[in-house]
Amino acid sequence: MEKLLKKADLDRVFNAEAVAIIGASKDEAKRGYQAIKTLLNERYEGRIYPVNPKEKSILGLKCYPSLLDIPDEIDLALITTPARTLKDILKQCAEKGIAGAVVIAGGFGEQGEEGKLLEKEMVENANGVRIIGPNTSGMISVNKGLNLVGLQNVPRGSIALLTQSGNIALTLITEAGLKSQNGFKYYVGVGNEADLKFHEYLEYFTEDPDISAILMYVEGLREGRKFLEQASETTRVKPIILFKSGRSATGSKSAGSHTGALAGISEVANTAFKRAGIITVQHSDEMFPIAESLASLPLIEESSIAILADGGGHATIAADYLTELGIKIPELEEETREKLTAILPSNASLVNPIDVAGGTDQNPAIFADCAEILLGDKNIQGLLVVGLFGGYGIRFARKLAFKEEDAAHRMGKLVRRTGKPIVLHSLYNFAKPHSLDLLRYYKIPVYDSLEIACKCIEALSFYGAYQKEGRKESNFHFNWGEKAVPEGREIIKKALAEGSSALLEHEAKELLKLQGAPVSLDRLIVNEDEAVKVASELGYNVAMKIVSPDILHKSDAGGVMLKLKNEKEVRDAFNKIIKNAYDYNPDADIKGCIISRMSGEGVEVIIGTKNDDQFGPIIMFGLGGILVEVVKDVSFRVLPVSEHWAASMIDEIKSSAILDGVRGRPPCDKKAIAKLIGKVSEVIEAYPEIHEMDLNPVIVHEDGLSIVDARIILNPENMERKLKLTRSLDDTSN
Amino acid sequence: MEKLLKKADLDRVFNAEAVAIIGASKDEAKRGYQAIKTLLNERYEGRIYPVNPKEKSILGLKCYPSLLDIPDEIDLALITTPARTLKDILKQCAEKGIAGAVVIAGGFGEQGEEGKLLEKEMVENANGVRIIGPNTSGMISVNKGLNLVGLQNVPRGSIALLTQSGNIALTLITEAGLKSQNGFKYYVGVGNEADLKFHEYLEYFTEDPDISAILMYVEGLREGRKFLEQASETTRVKPIILFKSGRSATGSKSAGSHTGALAGISEVANTAFKRAGIITVQHSDEMFPIAESLASLPLIEESSIAILADGGGHATIAADYLTELGIKIPELEEETREKLTAILPSNASLVNPIDVAGGTDQNPAIFADCAEILLGDKNIQGLLVVGLFGGYGIRFARKLAFKEEDAAHRMGKLVRRTGKPIVLHSLYNFAKPHSLDLLRYYKIPVYDSLEIACKCIEALSFYGAYQKEGRKESNFHFNWGEKAVPEGREIIKKALAEGSSALLEHEAKELLKLQGAPVSLDRLIVNEDEAVKVASELGYNVAMKIVSPDILHKSDAGGVMLKLKNEKEVRDAFNKIIKNAYDYNPDADIKGCIISRMSGEGVEVIIGTKNDDQFGPIIMFGLGGILVEVVKDVSFRVLPVSEHWAASMIDEIKSSAILDGVRGRPPCDKKAIAKLIGKVSEVIEAYPEIHEMDLNPVIVHEDGLSIVDARIILNPENMERKLKLTRSLDDTSN
Repeated sequence: MEKLLKKADLDRVFNAEAVAIIGASKDEAKRGYQAIKTLLNERYEGRIYPVNPKEKSILGLKCYPSLLDIPDEIDLALITTPARTLKDILKQCAEKGIAGAVVIAGGFGEQGEEGKLLEKEMVENANGVRIIGPNTSGMISVNKGLNLVGLQNVPRGSIALLTQSGNIALTLITEAGLKSQNGFKYYVGVGNEADLKFHEYLEYFTEDPDISAILMYVEGLREGRKFLEQASETTRVKPIILFKSGRSATGSKSAGSHTGALAGISEVANTAFKRAGIITVQHSDEMFPIAESLASLPLIEESSIAILADGGGHATIAADYLTELGIKIPELEEETREKLTAILPSNASLVNPIDVAGGTDQNPAIFADCAEILLGDKNIQGLLVVGLFGGYGIRFARKLAFKEEDAAHRMGKLVRRTGKPIVLHSLYNFAKPHSLDLLRYYKIPVYDSLEIACKCIEALSFYGAYQKEGRKESNFHFNWGEKAVPEGREIIKKALAEGSSALLEHEAKELLKLQGAPVSLDRLIVNEDEAVKVASELGYNVAMKIVSPDILHKSDAGGVMLKLKNEKEVRDAFNKIIKNAYDYNPDADIKGCIISRMSGEGVEVIIGTKNDDQFGPIIMFGLGGILVEVVKDVSFRVLPVSEHWAASMIDEIKSSAILDGVRGRPPCDKKAIAKLIGKVSEVIEAYPEIHEMDLNPVIVHEDGLSIVDARIILNPENMERKLKLTRSLDDTSN
Repeated sequence: MEKLLKKADLDRVFNAEAVAIIGASKDEAKRGYQAIKTLLNERYEGRIYPVNPKEKSILGLKCYPSLLDIPDEIDLALITTPARTLKDILKQCAEKGIAGAVVIAGGFGEQGEEGKLLEKEMVENANGVRIIGPNTSGMISVNKGLNLVGLQNVPRGSIALLTQSGNIALTLITEAGLKSQNGFKYYVGVGNEADLKFHEYLEYFTEDPDISAILMYVEGLREGRKFLEQASETTRVKPIILFKSGRSATGSKSAGSHTGALAGISEVANTAFKRAGIITVQHSDEMFPIAESLASLPLIEESSIAILADGGGHATIAADYLTELGIKIPELEEETREKLTAILPSNASLVNPIDVAGGTDQNPAIFADCAEILLGDKNIQGLLVVGLFGGYGIRFARKLAFKEEDAAHRMGKLVRRTGKPIVLHSLYNFAKPHSLDLLRYYKIPVYDSLEIACKCIEALSFYGAYQKEGRKESNFHFNWGEKAVPEGREIIKKALAEGSSALLEHEAKELLKLQGAPVSLDRLIVNEDEAVKVASELGYNVAMKIVSPDILHKSDAGGVMLKLKNEKEVRDAFNKIIKNAYDYNPDADIKGCIISRMSGEGVEVIIGTKNDDQFGPIIMFGLGGILVEVVKDVSFRVLPVSEHWAASMIDEIKSSAILDGVRGRPPCDKKAIAKLIGKVSEVIEAYPEIHEMDLNPVIVHEDGLSIVDARIILNPENMERKLKLTRSLDDTSN
């Protein structure tokens, strides 16, 4: 119910039939003048109402002293007045029943505490009026002429643009105008996300059938997890292309808790984005090309393409780079080679990449013949054409331009017919030959950078594979508490009641065991005789560790003794551990010791979770010791993760071959690790009071594993936060 | 003497005053026609002599039945006839006293054994006539109109172009024509390097004062080491920009011997190229831009620049990327900030990167004011301008274009005056505004890719730093045998005389010791009693290892016993090792055992050398165990390496922090490692008979290190090869 209302609100915002310009002005240098001028220039389809108590009219339009004086229903307000005025203006907007307000002013959350307060007040006073910004360049609804930005000549098209930088928007819009035949349906300067957030725009654009791709420039996300949840919904329907900036700053911001210090947060973000099916872009010059390709071309399902070149150099470079990007360049079918042989010179290379070896010099229309043959090959799911196409008319003879145009028509239709994409690289793109415009008319993009063309192929392959397989693992939704068991709740309740901020080791292990993790439970003993009894029951050799809520780092306190092989050693160890513990902390509340069998041979791994500021619970996996601490060879995932998805975490680390057995050792039970990661994910989901969990080390054997130490930190406030999150998630999904 | 002759030869080739076209034709489709047409079109300054026994004249020029019939001195022949004819034609060329021949035909070395034979015969018959190619697109001497390729409108300029792909040449020449004001003085299609090799062209171009940069596209180098030697000479004078293709194929080609299998050869090549001062390019779309920047701009010495932007987005992206590329973006001096404050709006960001925040909207000439202020800051060695410059006249108001042109003039002169470079990114580059052409007139390059502009900054910084510091370590020359000592020669002579292909462990260690490496010599013993005597002299505990030329892998044969702590253990160990050895190989020639003290605690490292096909002796360093074997965390250098340069190998590996002490361990003696690497380099240089050396493991202590095992493989043929190399090196350096 609420969602429908919200959608209607956003509809009113993006398709506003009446716009009020608050802060309208006669001063040509002011935004309140330029905005009206732009709306008039762009032939905005709706009604414009300037608001300024000091003016009678602006640019031929009647000017109103206040919003409330306008005798019409207003859908959208553009507010160009300073931050301090916004509180009252938004109140008026609410009173007037306006659907949305675009707040240009800066001086809010981005400028410290006072600004944050202003921002909060503004949102409260808005009372349901949806706010774009503040600190935004504005928004444009291109088809309506609803241009509140001042960027002129925005080319129409099927891309929705969400950015946090006005001049990146300008860059992309300019680039589209100069180099593409596609353009934009909407542009939103997202600004500070005070009210409307990235994921809400995404949700709206997902349902708009005219939008075929969403292009995002993101400096920071306020609601990382909601964004991931919505993005994974959106990418089921249409592609999201995302460039994340502020990496260098963000990198340094990470640090902090143990797990987080191991890698910059952007690694977590990148992995999560990919899992949500988002196409992440590394370089800004690839943003528009990739969006353009994804907006109009069929996807590549099997990640296997052909390269068609009119020279060995381009063919080699493309093959190198695509190989590095993980794209297959398979051999052609016998039949394909025969067909190519019939139309190409004898010295042409028919091993993929295909080099026509001068075979198109007299007649570049042969490119279309080759394309048709290649896309007819069942091993080939897409085609990259590299080299001179578009330039034959310029370089060799004018009449060849017409042959190229013929080829362009045929290749354009070929893509439609086969449902397999063609991406073109042409070194004559800059010269703007007509044949390349024709290709663009057929929605085949053309790039003068060979590398960018390859990146488009990669993106088409990534998204093709995601649509086919990847999205099965793109669940970011927690069902908090759902899988909790009463005994588990009891352990946590007891610890919290006692004011503990952590579970004791044996409690942590029990919680894991309750969830079905393969834990051999430790036995708590409180005196020498009990120790000997338990040790002999377990069978020598055993390990003994102190149990005290006041001693977290047990080894540092001399609270761990290993490889105890007989009664005497057990007795000595018990006495020594207790003595060490009191020496370490005379006031410690010592509960006793736990005894466990020494675990067998295997490889040490670490599994840890933490609460990420942006995305909430995340999990880390790595091999124990220096590989985690020094080489920082770890993999991250935003939780939850399934056992199946966890397998990809294990394979991702550089040293994963160690688990397969090196130096004559048997392979480790990787399935058991994946299963344990899945269980850890379940525990985190079942008990929202858990702040962080560390299983370190876990010894992985040829068959099974041993969780040697487990640490669980609690945070009762955390539960509050998470439950709130859950509630608000429930709200939006009603 | 010979060198002078050769230079004169190449002068005659590149500035030929008379050219014979062998295989001249009246058929317009044939190269023998096109070549003459092109020379006429391009107004070649010299004399053209078509050669074809069947024609009287071609394109108005008298045609000669054979080369020998031409009544003139010929400098250069273009030969368009097939491979099989070349043997005889080159003989004629030699007879005629021609300086050089351009051989277009393929079907030589690139097509297998038969082709290789043809190639060899051709070179022999040439008898000193220098050959460009075969399998080449030709060569162009642009200023002379000596165009033997058929690429038209080659823009003149100061770049020399060496490629192994005709269409990459076309790409770069087209790109220069469309996007730059610089161009080329020479183009050479290097082809198969049958005679003239990359390093010889380099040498010639190095001495040409008109050439300010050398741009190379390389698929394979025939003479890797000579190339490195010449390149490190060339880069003292002018930059080399190199793109290496065929990476994916090369990668798979590596494998083979132990050290080589650890990483693709291109890693070795990349490191060596950088050490030679070569600017290596990763993406083909960066080739021309980087060459253009390096050909005309002053270098960046301190790798610290300012970013000047007219929008936050571009500023952030540039800052992120440059940071990733290792470029410093330092804070500005107080005085600089004050000056900027005076001309920019109050909301401008004066923390580097500088965002003018609309301060140029009314007057883009303020860019020049900012540039002047920024380049006046002593912390700032270069400037990257990003954003809309060039587009103010297009976007805002026509008259602003003149302000931009004014700014272009001033920025151009500023670079000349300050000797600090400006690189520009403009999103209006594609629209070709006049102001951007003006910048190019002043040799300030302009790019529409922000990332490519950043890469140019990186290249200017790399080469600036190289000129200042790096080139001290760019020695690739071996003085074979110079540092050998008589005892060392004796060890090797004896082993070779005995037909051994390897030194025994104690011999290898002695060789190292003779060169000054810190080896504690092992003692060879032949019976139990000797063993006990030596062990007690050394002091317990000791290690014992089998010595036999027939047992290379001692551990596998049960030939190693460690931690022997008393007489009984030593006696038992001796008997067991001898038994194991005979069990392992009953026919083994067993020389006895060596005994050494167990080395103290420390970190295991590996140092190994091998003979690379392309570059000759190379050296590898890594930490022992899984870090080398599984994580493949190793660094490579082409030998020789100094102790100082070796330090960079140690820092380069990802796990180098382990050597600084982790988990409470003391730091390792990294200086000792560097010194040992330097010594290994010396040994390799002193004894050319050594094929490979492996020190594995070496235990590095807090103070000093222990070489636990040393293995040296000999190869008498290797010496032959190296000495030949030395001789030929001596030849060219006379």
